[in-house]
Amino acid sequence: MRRAVVLLSGGLDSCVAASEAQHRGFRLHALSIDYGQRHARELQAARDVARALGAEHRTVRVDLAALGGSALTDQAIAVPQDRDAHVMAADIPPTYVPARNTVFLSIAAGWAEVLDADAVFIGANAVDYSGYPDCRPEYLRAFEEAARLGTRRGIEGRAIRIEAPLVHLSKAGIVHLGLERKAPLHLTWSCYLGGRKQCGRCDSCRLRRKGFREAGLEDPVGYEA
Amino acid sequence: MRRAVVLLSGGLDSCVAASEAQHRGFRLHALSIDYGQRHARELQAARDVARALGAEHRTVRVDLAALGGSALTDQAIAVPQDRDAHVMAADIPPTYVPARNTVFLSIAAGWAEVLDADAVFIGANAVDYSGYPDCRPEYLRAFEEAARLGTRRGIEGRAIRIEAPLVHLSKAGIVHLGLERKAPLHLTWSCYLGGRKQCGRCDSCRLRRKGFREAGLEDPVGYEA
Repeated sequence: MRRAVVLLSGGLDSCVAASEAQHRGFRLHALSIDYGQRHARELQAARDVARALGAEHRTVRVDLAALGGSALTDQAIAVPQDRDAHVMAADIPPTYVPARNTVFLSIAAGWAEVLDADAVFIGANAVDYSGYPDCRPEYLRAFEEAARLGTRRGIEGRAIRIEAPLVHLSKAGIVHLGLERKAPLHLTWSCYLGGRKQCGRCDSCRLRRKGFREAGLEDPVGYEA
Repeated sequence: MRRAVVLLSGGLDSCVAASEAQHRGFRLHALSIDYGQRHARELQAARDVARALGAEHRTVRVDLAALGGSALTDQAIAVPQDRDAHVMAADIPPTYVPARNTVFLSIAAGWAEVLDADAVFIGANAVDYSGYPDCRPEYLRAFEEAARLGTRRGIEGRAIRIEAPLVHLSKAGIVHLGLERKAPLHLTWSCYLGGRKQCGRCDSCRLRRKGFREAGLEDPVGYEA
């Protein structure tokens, strides 16, 4: 059985990406990165999603908070709230964590080498997204090429593929695909803040709500506001 | 003054790369990665080299040992000794840490974004080297392109350059350049093992010795054997 490493943040998108990888016949090895984010709630969600999917799960620590520069790792920088989707996509927001997906993908590629896995799945999306440069398809293709040249499997002509099955989907499309794949959406956590419920107002909550609303479905996870 | 992030392992090559970056007029921000390597001796050497160069220095932890697959992070895998240089270059050895330079460069690129630094310097070398795929110039160019597409500076048309000033030098050439740049070579540590002295027999020690020997110079750092 072919193996895939799946980056699992605990959010909606990576849960659907993981379910899609499973649907395509891969045996899943779920990887979460504890990078010093504001709260551990999403890492708990990642563990729950991995368990529901029957996937091996590992959490690797990388202390990106030591470098600062993002609202997600520095409590002194505010997380924006109440922004509309077209505003989000127009600019790189303070929640951007410099080079985060490159760090995540490189660790995932390293684990894929060790496991002899064929692919790394990531829930990156460039339609209803926060304007992060490292979610765009042209970036993902460039990273795939760097990983091909910089790994043993690449040298051997069996390069690790970087699969981003959601990259061209709208958030509503992601919700629909999640339902089709019976993804455990009720276990996910998308909020940038670490409250008892999702805040409903940060970029991540607003994109998620927009997705469920446009899909005409109720979100199984509740919100504060 | 232009800034550069310099990956500083504590070894010979990164010390010379850092000195070269300083010579080119960059203000240095030295970055070491504690990735779960066999010993902390080289991280101490990195701190000493950074201090000697007057550079800011940070150590970021990434738990690559949690993924296994390398003699440098797994005590159960033996570090090869007494291999000749042409043998080393012919194959990828057990000391290869999957995707290590991609992990290192991505963290360095992230810090470069935060600092608004123009370049990341790495001491990668593809002449007298251990056959690691992620030391080759074609890999480094591909990573630079991924970083361009995946970072804010890249989007703004001010992409972070990946500089590998030693990539085409022989080990003797690296020693010569280090002397020319007055690099603090006496503070470096190249050995893969963590003894009181460098073992003199692992790939890294043998390449270092070969460099000093071919340069006709005495290595200021001693060996066990």
